[in-house]
Amino acid sequence: MISAQKASTATFDRVRAVEWDNDRLKLLDQRYLPLREAYLHCDTVAAVAQAIGDMVVRGAPAIGIAAAYGVVLAARDRFRADPGRWAQAIEADLALLAAARPTAVNLAWAIARMRRSIIAGIDGDPTPVLLAEAQRLHAEDIAANHAMGRYGAELIAPGSSVLTHCNTGALATGGYGTALGVIRAGAAAGHIVQTYANETRPWLQGARLTAWELVQEGIPVTLIADSAAAYLMQQGKVQWVIVGADRVAANGDVANKVGTYMTALAARQHGVRFMVVAPTSTIDPAMPSGEAIPIEHRPAAEVVAYGERRVTPEGVAAWNPAFDITPAGLVDALVTERGVVLQPDRAKIAALLQNRPPA
Amino acid sequence: MISAQKASTATFDRVRAVEWDNDRLKLLDQRYLPLREAYLHCDTVAAVAQAIGDMVVRGAPAIGIAAAYGVVLAARDRFRADPGRWAQAIEADLALLAAARPTAVNLAWAIARMRRSIIAGIDGDPTPVLLAEAQRLHAEDIAANHAMGRYGAELIAPGSSVLTHCNTGALATGGYGTALGVIRAGAAAGHIVQTYANETRPWLQGARLTAWELVQEGIPVTLIADSAAAYLMQQGKVQWVIVGADRVAANGDVANKVGTYMTALAARQHGVRFMVVAPTSTIDPAMPSGEAIPIEHRPAAEVVAYGERRVTPEGVAAWNPAFDITPAGLVDALVTERGVVLQPDRAKIAALLQNRPPA
Repeated sequence: MISAQKASTATFDRVRAVEWDNDRLKLLDQRYLPLREAYLHCDTVAAVAQAIGDMVVRGAPAIGIAAAYGVVLAARDRFRADPGRWAQAIEADLALLAAARPTAVNLAWAIARMRRSIIAGIDGDPTPVLLAEAQRLHAEDIAANHAMGRYGAELIAPGSSVLTHCNTGALATGGYGTALGVIRAGAAAGHIVQTYANETRPWLQGARLTAWELVQEGIPVTLIADSAAAYLMQQGKVQWVIVGADRVAANGDVANKVGTYMTALAARQHGVRFMVVAPTSTIDPAMPSGEAIPIEHRPAAEVVAYGERRVTPEGVAAWNPAFDITPAGLVDALVTERGVVLQPDRAKIAALLQNRPPA
Repeated sequence: MISAQKASTATFDRVRAVEWDNDRLKLLDQRYLPLREAYLHCDTVAAVAQAIGDMVVRGAPAIGIAAAYGVVLAARDRFRADPGRWAQAIEADLALLAAARPTAVNLAWAIARMRRSIIAGIDGDPTPVLLAEAQRLHAEDIAANHAMGRYGAELIAPGSSVLTHCNTGALATGGYGTALGVIRAGAAAGHIVQTYANETRPWLQGARLTAWELVQEGIPVTLIADSAAAYLMQQGKVQWVIVGADRVAANGDVANKVGTYMTALAARQHGVRFMVVAPTSTIDPAMPSGEAIPIEHRPAAEVVAYGERRVTPEGVAAWNPAFDITPAGLVDALVTERGVVLQPDRAKIAALLQNRPPA
């Protein structure tokens, strides 16, 4: 189910970045795409935590899935070291994974889910039980993405052009993608005829990863500088902005890749609709609003240099928040695997999480 | 007056990019900054036109000044070739210069001014007369920048932090700069304590040129990704956005480096004030509003590659407008060498150009 070979090509679903392979976690190293397709194999939980921190694997759902497999590796090692106390000893590993990146809530969500399996009690070697749980979580993410793709594509009128930010595709998830899943489904259905991608400085997820994925699928893509988005909208060239999320607060505020907020402001100004595509695992009901979501600040080196090549003179500082907060009021549609929430707010999101119709 | 050596350091005025040197035009090649300080010498008008088109020299006022010196080179060659008909023959050269870049009106303005000297009639070799006119135009630009620096800095409360976009400094003008002139004056006066610079994709004028200039002057600068500007404002970190202009329409709409409009939208959202700094030569009274200003689209290569290094996979298109239009309604202050226009509109700008108080 999760190998590139078995995925269908007719539905634009050929890319996988996270795989359990030969008793270890295999990650497509996203730091080197599209120039090099290199894979990193993780045999230990420490290697998984480092891969998440270094952005070998990135994207909120993909981070969660990688962490789930990291728990499997941790359990295997802890059980080998001390079969009687592995379930206590593994807590340090769960904490290490949870600290790898602060903003995406899927990381904490996936770890919490794996912990529930541990707490439920496992007789003997926990590895097969936890691996099955990680694989279930992975498969559910892919299924959720396909569902979101269908829901989101239905909102888009045939012949539309859309703009996306960052990478929210197979590379950022278990497979298929969130916002890019909607674009895959929308392209397959003929609803989306043109996709513009923000290059997404400083890490260039759009230029490197989204462009690479769409080229793999044969879906046409046109790149723009992030700051050209408002002019693109002013020229009437797009009808929707479609983005993912790293965390959605209980009131519908959205933490996502830096630049999302600025794009949402421009969209509202021009009557371009704004869609956030995220599985319910990205919603954090304990977070009342966006203001309290921890925003990761990453090294200045990502801004002052390109790869190893310095762009700016010595002596220049940089301010490099990796995410920003888009207020719920700027979101026209929140698309989840359970359905679509139009003009999301606290009550509608609570109803969605309780699987009941909104009041 | 226009050499780096003679410029004062106490007033942060050490950088010159356009100089008449030893009977030819000497340009600091801005394609290679800050990695290399290389100079290009132009002996012919064709070389000047190409240098403008290739962005060896860029920035609306600097383009105009370079073109004025280009007219001197053209006149020298045309007079040598045919002393009796040089003033007719030079029209082809003026057209070549005017076509080098479409958006900045200073180019057409400087050529028109040089043409007036030609039409007025010059006896004998026109070179010294036209050179004197070009140098006068150049000196006036520097003086205008110093005046704008003073006017603009007065608007800024002591202890403020500001954000700028693109490069509007000595590199973009005859010297000192427009928006960056205000930042120089504001820093010298203690009104500005912190300058944030948008890196300004795709050409990275902020990361490469503004950062380089401010480091030369010893003015602290912090770089951000363009798309982080809204979050910077949301965090309350800046009180003013200060930008230049490539053309100001009669109603106050502003054509400037792509991303200016998006930054202005974010500023308005957060109550951050927005200042445009431009000499009156940048105002085009013949252009009723921003919609009709020609927007240059540059090659996709600027977006799909980083310098000479390709970032995106083959098969990816790019849409690369070099400028955008900021509506006058988003501008809090238009600072010119003749004074400040608050909340600029058609009547106030007409009054400014006629040197009369607004009605």
